[in-house]
Amino acid sequence: MKKLSIIKIGGNVIENKQELSTFLKLFAKLDGLKILVHGGGKLATQLATKLGIQSKMVAGRRITDAETLEVITMVYAGLANKNIVAQLQAHKCNAIGLSGADGNMIQAHKRPVTEIDYGFAGDVDDVNKNIISKLLKADLTPVFCAMTHDGEGQLLNTNADTIASEIAIAMSAFYETTLYYCFEKKGVLQNIKDEDSVISQINNRSYTKLLNEGIIVDGMIPKIDNCFYAVERGVEKVCIGHHSMLATKDGLFTTITL
Amino acid sequence: MKKLSIIKIGGNVIENKQELSTFLKLFAKLDGLKILVHGGGKLATQLATKLGIQSKMVAGRRITDAETLEVITMVYAGLANKNIVAQLQAHKCNAIGLSGADGNMIQAHKRPVTEIDYGFAGDVDDVNKNIISKLLKADLTPVFCAMTHDGEGQLLNTNADTIASEIAIAMSAFYETTLYYCFEKKGVLQNIKDEDSVISQINNRSYTKLLNEGIIVDGMIPKIDNCFYAVERGVEKVCIGHHSMLATKDGLFTTITL
Repeated sequence: MKKLSIIKIGGNVIENKQELSTFLKLFAKLDGLKILVHGGGKLATQLATKLGIQSKMVAGRRITDAETLEVITMVYAGLANKNIVAQLQAHKCNAIGLSGADGNMIQAHKRPVTEIDYGFAGDVDDVNKNIISKLLKADLTPVFCAMTHDGEGQLLNTNADTIASEIAIAMSAFYETTLYYCFEKKGVLQNIKDEDSVISQINNRSYTKLLNEGIIVDGMIPKIDNCFYAVERGVEKVCIGHHSMLATKDGLFTTITL
Repeated sequence: MKKLSIIKIGGNVIENKQELSTFLKLFAKLDGLKILVHGGGKLATQLATKLGIQSKMVAGRRITDAETLEVITMVYAGLANKNIVAQLQAHKCNAIGLSGADGNMIQAHKRPVTEIDYGFAGDVDDVNKNIISKLLKADLTPVFCAMTHDGEGQLLNTNADTIASEIAIAMSAFYETTLYYCFEKKGVLQNIKDEDSVISQINNRSYTKLLNEGIIVDGMIPKIDNCFYAVERGVEKVCIGHHSMLATKDGLFTTITL
């Protein structure tokens, strides 16, 4: 099986032109088949503010009303995606920018309304691994923004972490996949006050222990649960850390396996 | 040789949700291989106005400064392109939205500064016919927005009519191409006051006559020159008319051949 890397970058990189440029140089140099997944970070909120649209958040999640969906479509699929693609092209990486609607690559459904109506937020149903594989075979590097569609004409805002893991899971049918979650920190920390106290390996058993000891808490729990969700469904391993981990494979970052 | 239709829709269709929906239903039903090309019409100007960015026009052409390029990237490649793709998917047309940067499909250079500095406006150098052909063979329908790139990381605003003709010319190496320019009128008119006085055929010889007789004047001249540019470079024929011509091949519209 050929290897395939799926890399998700955080909003902090998208927002910062210098950081983004550094990351894209790194990404372009990365050997082998690869897929990039991104959101739009604060860029969408900034545009919404300029347009006088209030960003509504509930429990850390954006409520995507019709106006907000337009902003997200402009920022994620337009501004962020096409600038990333143009820059990767300059580094001789043959990138192709995509939303989940393009080529029907990521099908989703509007999240059902319960106590909260998330608006046009999409939960992924299916990733079209065959068409993504065709792009990879044509020497193209897919760059997905965090949008999907319902197949009935509706675009949907979808969490970029979820898109990355669903793509990695689907592509595991054809490739040996590694999923990289890039964020500000060097990895999962043993001691929250020590930025270098990175736990290098977490598996199912050690995760239970880390949870019981209260070392992994709060927002880190859903993040790691999402990683286990991926490795339990065929992804070889998930790496969490700063994007510089892509350059130095023996550097500090956390690897999650079964 | 297989047949390929390249259809360029006007800004008046993009701006009007109802018109766009009617057109996309028609386009989805169109038999055979096809490519859609679109700009953003007044949507970009509307967003620029909301953001307090003044649209600068010289001789009917937009001056694309850095701020305007951002607006165009958001509207053309984001809002317009992805909504078209999502709607086509609903009609079971497997659309894939693209800018010229994606897959390095349309390479251009920034228009040189003479008396006028057009800013980030691109003139097309090359269309990557091999990669577009691969998409068509994968049963995908490319939907191009009016943007190109210079290969060095710079996105460029490029006239949609030009993009359509350059794609049609390039694809003529592999396919028997027909280029459709859709606009508000039913075709080139014999009598400007009679909307139904459509000239059904124009060739090189009759064009000279129409010019000498003063029947074709003003803005219609560069439009038709652009059509001849295409047929002289391998495009089988160019059809000009209202988009309803796609449904009724024996209706009123103008066909331009050598």
